[in-house]
Amino acid sequence: MYEFIKYDTQEGVTTITLNRPEVYNALNDEITYELQDALKKAAKEDETRVVVFTGEGKAFCSGQDLKAAVGDQKRSFSASLEKRYNPLISLMRNLPKPIICRLNGVAAGAGCSLALASDILVMAEETFLVEVFVNIGLVMDSGSSYFLPRLVGSSKAFELATMGGRVYGKEAVELGIANKSTPMAELDDAVKVYTDYYKNAPTKAIGLMKKMLNKSGNSDLKAMLEYEKYCQEIAGTSHDYKEGVDAFLEKRKAKFIGR
Amino acid sequence: MYEFIKYDTQEGVTTITLNRPEVYNALNDEITYELQDALKKAAKEDETRVVVFTGEGKAFCSGQDLKAAVGDQKRSFSASLEKRYNPLISLMRNLPKPIICRLNGVAAGAGCSLALASDILVMAEETFLVEVFVNIGLVMDSGSSYFLPRLVGSSKAFELATMGGRVYGKEAVELGIANKSTPMAELDDAVKVYTDYYKNAPTKAIGLMKKMLNKSGNSDLKAMLEYEKYCQEIAGTSHDYKEGVDAFLEKRKAKFIGR
Amino acid sequence: MYEFIKYDTQEGVTTITLNRPEVYNALNDEITYELQDALKKAAKEDETRVVVFTGEGKAFCSGQDLKAAVGDQKRSFSASLEKRYNPLISLMRNLPKPIICRLNGVAAGAGCSLALASDILVMAEETFLVEVFVNIGLVMDSGSSYFLPRLVGSSKAFELATMGGRVYGKEAVELGIANKSTPMAELDDAVKVYTDYYKNAPTKAIGLMKKMLNKSGNSDLKAMLEYEKYCQEIAGTSHDYKEGVDAFLEKRKAKFIGR
Repeated sequence: MYEFIKYDTQEGVTTITLNRPEVYNALNDEITYELQDALKKAAKEDETRVVVFTGEGKAFCSGQDLKAAVGDQKRSFSASLEKRYNPLISLMRNLPKPIICRLNGVAAGAGCSLALASDILVMAEETFLVEVFVNIGLVMDSGSSYFLPRLVGSSKAFELATMGGRVYGKEAVELGIANKSTPMAELDDAVKVYTDYYKNAPTKAIGLMKKMLNKSGNSDLKAMLEYEKYCQEIAGTSHDYKEGVDAFLEKRKAKFIGR
Repeated sequence: MYEFIKYDTQEGVTTITLNRPEVYNALNDEITYELQDALKKAAKEDETRVVVFTGEGKAFCSGQDLKAAVGDQKRSFSASLEKRYNPLISLMRNLPKPIICRLNGVAAGAGCSLALASDILVMAEETFLVEVFVNIGLVMDSGSSYFLPRLVGSSKAFELATMGGRVYGKEAVELGIANKSTPMAELDDAVKVYTDYYKNAPTKAIGLMKKMLNKSGNSDLKAMLEYEKYCQEIAGTSHDYKEGVDAFLEKRKAKFIGR
Repeated sequence: MYEFIKYDTQEGVTTITLNRPEVYNALNDEITYELQDALKKAAKEDETRVVVFTGEGKAFCSGQDLKAAVGDQKRSFSASLEKRYNPLISLMRNLPKPIICRLNGVAAGAGCSLALASDILVMAEETFLVEVFVNIGLVMDSGSSYFLPRLVGSSKAFELATMGGRVYGKEAVELGIANKSTPMAELDDAVKVYTDYYKNAPTKAIGLMKKMLNKSGNSDLKAMLEYEKYCQEIAGTSHDYKEGVDAFLEKRKAKFIGR
């Protein structure tokens, strides 16, 4: 179905794998459109309760495919961001399901932005994130200028963006970028802790909380109190809320269906 | 005067104690209205220079009283947040005096939000905060969606909100949620360091800085520079500013009266 | 040329030194106007690729010159902030070049704000930052109410602002305020790592990223994605982008000229 990515759903967990290992999963035009399509699919399909985003081979994603870009004389950054990267980041943030980034290898440039745009970041401690844009005289894009200061504070964000330093797994956890760092050999076990939880979680409420945190990034307390009220009213009509309260009163484990 | 809380003022320090220890200080309708009233009282009374917020018994606050809520067939989340929780959080944030949360035990759900809405959080290291909403299919409320990302960053906020993990005292300090963690046996000593300071501090300036930080959460630099100007002009006409400068020039300790 | 500061440019690095060591570089009217002028000069001059901001003698900057202010009966905080401090902070944040604060000694009050307004903060570990305003009944100003919560989170910001605690170098790095802490004897070496990098970096892209991070502090994701697009289009027409891509394809080190 897809040429440059793999898409696979097993027991509520949809794994989207960047699959151009021969170029460290660099992003050409086609792969970004395939990713957009895959995210729309994951949004629609009820059996998807959580998405795992990862890379085939040694890298997670080396960012924009520079060689592909260089050939194109009429290449416009504006058009590329407008059609390819910005919709991709928006789809990730608007997907009402958790996205776990399984960082199996380097995440550079736009690849770094994809990692930051995920909800949960699980990193192999041997690998790193790098805002590599500055190395070729560009600015960070694909949402990094929004995500980075909200993760590490304004000062560290300036340093990482303008010096292009590498952030390995352990430092990423200390800085608040990554949720978990683990030796590569244990990466799948670490990811499984999250997928096992999220595939059985009240997905509806989680999707609403993702929207709330999106909105919180640029709202005042009054607006958030209003929005919490709006979202709680929705969550409170869900099957999973009824089940949650029943289970609490009956002192048993809740069985959530995600709606 | 109150049925479900205790309210006591000693030497400038007003202690508000949630007092339903038999249900881990769960929040029924009455207790939230009493809390609202107590905060209005603390705002008005000049002898109150700092508020300590704590719980009777083993818990700080277990959140909404679920058993009380379940009995009410017509229960509306929207009405409950609008009348009970949102005004309570607004009163806390608008109180022009510091609120120290003395976290003597678990703070769950709306109880966690009350801890986060405080200005200074002092935790017994044996106890924890938990955004327990997700466990019954609900979204975080009472301001948690506003406070949490501003304390721990967007990524950790998502994890804590959607996985409902426990944050014990030491981790809370590392994450920037709590100001201090201490063994339970030393909790009162730790709180006293803060109350001794704040009851003798220039309360007027502190109240203004609390307003400034409230506003900073959703303002740009230009707006904050303007607002600093406005607030400094007010602080500069206070008794405590005159006293502060006099004490500085006379090389003695200032004696602030809070106005 | 200047009476109270030193201004010196060597190989792309402009060093601006507060030069009133006899009063710990306290800020009188004249020195703030000289600083404003120096920043305008640094903005205009192409040979300046990076600015180092430091203090002569034992202190970095002890803040407002209280003794100078006390003599002036008609002193207005509002006028002082409007004419002196707020334009200074705005000039620092709008300078499209990195500002490295070489913190050689105490930074108090408005001096602390100057350190926080810098892009990169390198601290001698023996020295400290302190929001000393509260000690004389004033509120933090000169941008501290904007910068502090974006660096350390809302809770620690309240504590530091209202208690006036000292933050030494190592703690400043842990809190995310400072980028680097080092023994005083190695301060120049530590600063040199940054200046060596920035004087040879793609300054145009870095200036754009500084603007992006300024804007990110109060923008939503959608606005930042649009702004990234706008800035990338500008960076993509620079000499340094062309050089960066050429160097990448030719597998050599890029030689950036800052435009």
